[in-house]
Amino acid sequence: MTRLFHVPLSPFCRKVRLTLAEKKIEVELIEERFWEQSPEFLRRNPAGKVPVLKYENRLLSESQAICEYLDEVHPNPPLFPRSPADRFEVRRLCSWFDDKFHHEVTANLLYERVNKKLTGQGYPESRNVKTGAQKIKYHLDYMGWLLDQRRWLAGDAMTLADFAAAAHLSCLDYISDVDWNRNANVKDWYAKIKSRPSFRAILADQVPGFPPPSHYADLDF
Amino acid sequence: MTRLFHVPLSPFCRKVRLTLAEKKIEVELIEERFWEQSPEFLRRNPAGKVPVLKYENRLLSESQAICEYLDEVHPNPPLFPRSPADRFEVRRLCSWFDDKFHHEVTANLLYERVNKKLTGQGYPESRNVKTGAQKIKYHLDYMGWLLDQRRWLAGDAMTLADFAAAAHLSCLDYISDVDWNRNANVKDWYAKIKSRPSFRAILADQVPGFPPPSHYADLDF
Repeated sequence: MTRLFHVPLSPFCRKVRLTLAEKKIEVELIEERFWEQSPEFLRRNPAGKVPVLKYENRLLSESQAICEYLDEVHPNPPLFPRSPADRFEVRRLCSWFDDKFHHEVTANLLYERVNKKLTGQGYPESRNVKTGAQKIKYHLDYMGWLLDQRRWLAGDAMTLADFAAAAHLSCLDYISDVDWNRNANVKDWYAKIKSRPSFRAILADQVPGFPPPSHYADLDF
Repeated sequence: MTRLFHVPLSPFCRKVRLTLAEKKIEVELIEERFWEQSPEFLRRNPAGKVPVLKYENRLLSESQAICEYLDEVHPNPPLFPRSPADRFEVRRLCSWFDDKFHHEVTANLLYERVNKKLTGQGYPESRNVKTGAQKIKYHLDYMGWLLDQRRWLAGDAMTLADFAAAAHLSCLDYISDVDWNRNANVKDWYAKIKSRPSFRAILADQVPGFPPPSHYADLDF
């Protein structure tokens, strides 16, 4: 049985969940209090991070490596285009979201507001929250600019880059930190990806102590 | 003409330089004071980071995406194995070094000791340096454990994972922050990779104000 050790509001776990769901790979989700770094968990992943995927008796970690692997062993539907130049653009944007967006936005908003409380690290630092709220505007504008030229973020087909971006934005939307009125292109794009069957489980997530806003699961937000 | 905008002591730039050199792609190196975020540089890469590779009139950023692209368009010598499971392991280890090692070691040692001075951000924070010096031991032990079972980090062939690791370690070795006596496997592995022709340019790097120690370029260190 395929098992994913995860937390609901991790963009990296969500990227893997979306990939598994698009590929129609059934998975049992197991919530992992990774911050406690239990010896059992560290045996599963010495890096001490989620997601960890148990797949055909191997334990896989690092979300990008997992998603690329799943795309190679389950090529349909493809999450990467064919040409090396187009594949480059998918990987560039995955890094953009998982590195730059993560560092500038997700860490400053989600980790300050939610993870600190969940892991007993105290209160949000308002300076960081302010930085995150400022930086997300630039990122939404950049996405809007890309979507002016393309149907999906990395080109004319949906790819892993869309899942990487939607994974971050959906976590932030859970705490009402995305201004969907800022850019019509981005809102249209998110409406498209949000209505996919692969997104349903993510829209049903509930984190104790943090009820989602009503628009979170609404396809007409 | 292929051009790489880089800084000499960036592990991400070095990973790309090693890949270019293994593939025998000639490149003109241009040092980029990326921290000044000049408008011209931000046009080349809106993420504001090095490396940026100008290749066949396209501007490519994000080191992992660049290296995967170069391996797809110049497949020889291959930097990835054939099987999806083996490819997964290469990507997992690239993320291990570029994310975990980078965050725990490179940022605490190299960025504190060198980048802060180069970019006018003051003096090293001794607490961070201490953390980095502590954490590198664990990483060297982990590498040693991997190399107990394999000839190279990700398996029996040299791959991009070896370049990712060697890129970080060579930057740290430039400031004498690697204890090569800690693990014989790691020392043997580094001796092998250090003696490759693709490594020569990196061993000739000189950063004004930071002369390298004599063992840095010595193949018999």
